Amino acid sequence: MLPISFLSDYGHRDEWVGVCHGVIQRIAPGAMVIDIAHELPPTDIRHAALMLENALPFLPAGVVLAVVDPGVGTDRRAVALRSADGRLLVGPDNGLLWPAAQAAGGIEVAVEVSASRFRLDRVSPTFHGRDLFAPVAAHLALGAALDDAGAAIEPATITPLEIASPSVAARTVRAAVRLVDRFGNVQLQARAGDMESAGLRPGACVELAGRSQGVYGRTFAEAPPGEAVVYEDSSGWIAVAVNGGSAAAVLDVRAGSSLSVAGCEP
Amino acid sequence: MLPISFLSDYGHRDEWVGVCHGVIQRIAPGAMVIDIAHELPPTDIRHAALMLENALPFLPAGVVLAVVDPGVGTDRRAVALRSADGRLLVGPDNGLLWPAAQAAGGIEVAVEVSASRFRLDRVSPTFHGRDLFAPVAAHLALGAALDDAGAAIEPATITPLEIASPSVAARTVRAAVRLVDRFGNVQLQARAGDMESAGLRPGACVELAGRSQGVYGRTFAEAPPGEAVVYEDSSGWIAVAVNGGSAAAVLDVRAGSSLSVAGCEP
Amino acid sequence: MLPISFLSDYGHRDEWVGVCHGVIQRIAPGAMVIDIAHELPPTDIRHAALMLENALPFLPAGVVLAVVDPGVGTDRRAVALRSADGRLLVGPDNGLLWPAAQAAGGIEVAVEVSASRFRLDRVSPTFHGRDLFAPVAAHLALGAALDDAGAAIEPATITPLEIASPSVAARTVRAAVRLVDRFGNVQLQARAGDMESAGLRPGACVELAGRSQGVYGRTFAEAPPGEAVVYEDSSGWIAVAVNGGSAAAVLDVRAGSSLSVAGCEP
Repeated sequence: MLPISFLSDYGHRDEWVGVCHGVIQRIAPGAMVIDIAHELPPTDIRHAALMLENALPFLPAGVVLAVVDPGVGTDRRAVALRSADGRLLVGPDNGLLWPAAQAAGGIEVAVEVSASRFRLDRVSPTFHGRDLFAPVAAHLALGAALDDAGAAIEPATITPLEIASPSVAARTVRAAVRLVDRFGNVQLQARAGDMESAGLRPGACVELAGRSQGVYGRTFAEAPPGEAVVYEDSSGWIAVAVNGGSAAAVLDVRAGSSLSVAGCEP
Repeated sequence: MLPISFLSDYGHRDEWVGVCHGVIQRIAPGAMVIDIAHELPPTDIRHAALMLENALPFLPAGVVLAVVDPGVGTDRRAVALRSADGRLLVGPDNGLLWPAAQAAGGIEVAVEVSASRFRLDRVSPTFHGRDLFAPVAAHLALGAALDDAGAAIEPATITPLEIASPSVAARTVRAAVRLVDRFGNVQLQARAGDMESAGLRPGACVELAGRSQGVYGRTFAEAPPGEAVVYEDSSGWIAVAVNGGSAAAVLDVRAGSSLSVAGCEP
Repeated sequence: MLPISFLSDYGHRDEWVGVCHGVIQRIAPGAMVIDIAHELPPTDIRHAALMLENALPFLPAGVVLAVVDPGVGTDRRAVALRSADGRLLVGPDNGLLWPAAQAAGGIEVAVEVSASRFRLDRVSPTFHGRDLFAPVAAHLALGAALDDAGAAIEPATITPLEIASPSVAARTVRAAVRLVDRFGNVQLQARAGDMESAGLRPGACVELAGRSQGVYGRTFAEAPPGEAVVYEDSSGWIAVAVNGGSAAAVLDVRAGSSLSVAGCEP
């Protein structure tokens, strides 16, 4: 039986995560379910999609069940995908699965599961996580073929979620903010290679958004308390932290903003 | 071994949920434990009881361990129940288990477990979840007979928790508020059949508490942003949502309030 | 395979807990992982260490994975320990593991794991939970020898975390505040024996910090609403609660403060 990795914005105050687990165990008794996280910002598809992309390389081969679904009950499609490297991803077709699927080699097979034979007998228009996506994930974990889960659709029609590439100039990288974590650390859509292309090397003084100075270092602790550090984070993205504070607050940025990192004279 | 579904108001800041899991694994190694939810409103028995009632149909057959227990250490009874459809429910006798047990066909067998042979050697007066309820649940999961868990008591003496039935008149349903979820959606103690009895049919304009208008629709998205929708929710109850807002705040209701839904001219 | 009990300050908003679970399942498929708690006060080593000490007796024999690691990426050591009673504890050498290891009979064997052969191929300087500690814990769960996890170090060099002993005088106990839980209950570094040595027995009137009166009772419910009760808590420590309120707020104390409990005339 394949493990299922489960991500949602359901939170732990209501019973929603638990009943999805219940449905999975009713269909696939003993299934291993890994809770990636469930206290995500509600209805924030972009946040969940990028977080899933970051988590994927560390999850076991098997099924990903992801549900951040503000369009539940509308005509948005419900899908199950197989990526080139064999991951199975189940969730709404709203961009949520796209970055992870791309990172997993791209989408090889896609099926529409709204009318899946695996769904529960009664499908509520407001809780497809429980009635549709969890049952499909559980049957895939049991070894069902993707073709049996729904009707084939063209992989190229899956809703994309793309983040702008960074712009790299001499001694400046301007990049989109991917995610802000609970500590206010700011993850940028830029890699160490982009910094190097701009001539910014570890140890350099950097100016952020033209307003704060910091150091391009290796870890949080390299900045004095209250000061900024730019570093390659644990997902391989360039990020900004403020030692003991919130970089997002200090720099006044949020997910979807862009931020410039420029060399400076210390 | 039977799965255990576990609900509490312990939260995830303290070690309480974890040590209950630890106690279960020490007694029943490898037991499957489903966490229904643990960030419930502290000490709110009614909220937890109704949430458990909603969750139950989606949980696997087996044991329910539920602990919301403001009376721990007093003379409130501690019980384990078997419902007509074979569910085993363990927790304080304060109303918490009652709605779920009724929904499961009623209570067939009840035992008082305060002095259970399955309890830990030392029972703290303030943490029966760990010392009494989790061990009883674990032994039941292993297959122990309910009779071995405690002394038989009369099922009819189990503390009830009853919600008033809706009052249905021509073009008006007045119903108790069962639950308010994290989004502020308001779940009412009324069914679609009550709406129909009142002559309110999907598509109708409805007035809420004499102060807000909305539509009796099928899902959240049928209301424009900021407007109310009345719908049959995923647990089969009539509910009120405000698209992009909190219905509870807009209507100024909370669990235990009552709310009228009346037909109106749009 | 040994069960792993996992404690961290990662929270459930980000993917950090989930990817540690993912790494464990990739290495040790089917491993039982108990989440002790993850919504701890961020970077509060002392809080986590004392909570782990309290939880330990109720966790199954096996591996403890604990990560509260503000010094990640600095030269603080990363360690795996075996206690006299056979527990295996993995985490940063910053005091976090020390109280639990002492409670488990003391440290018998210690290894430094920063360069462990079990770590992931690429170790991020900011996420040793995922790249170093979770893999080491997973391999120990599979049965790897502690000696294979790292280089032996002297147990006596493990960073201690010691809480001052209470001072006991006639009719007064002054003790350090160990922990404040989510309800504001205040756990003191004092035992029932200390109260007895001071001549304070259950039923006594007690004055707290010279400002509030209460009763030395057995459980919360013995105080009228809004009043304080001193009691032996579920971990065997003397604690203060305010019925329906926050003792920490009423007494203006926090973890690390000290508090006097003195006899009084009611």
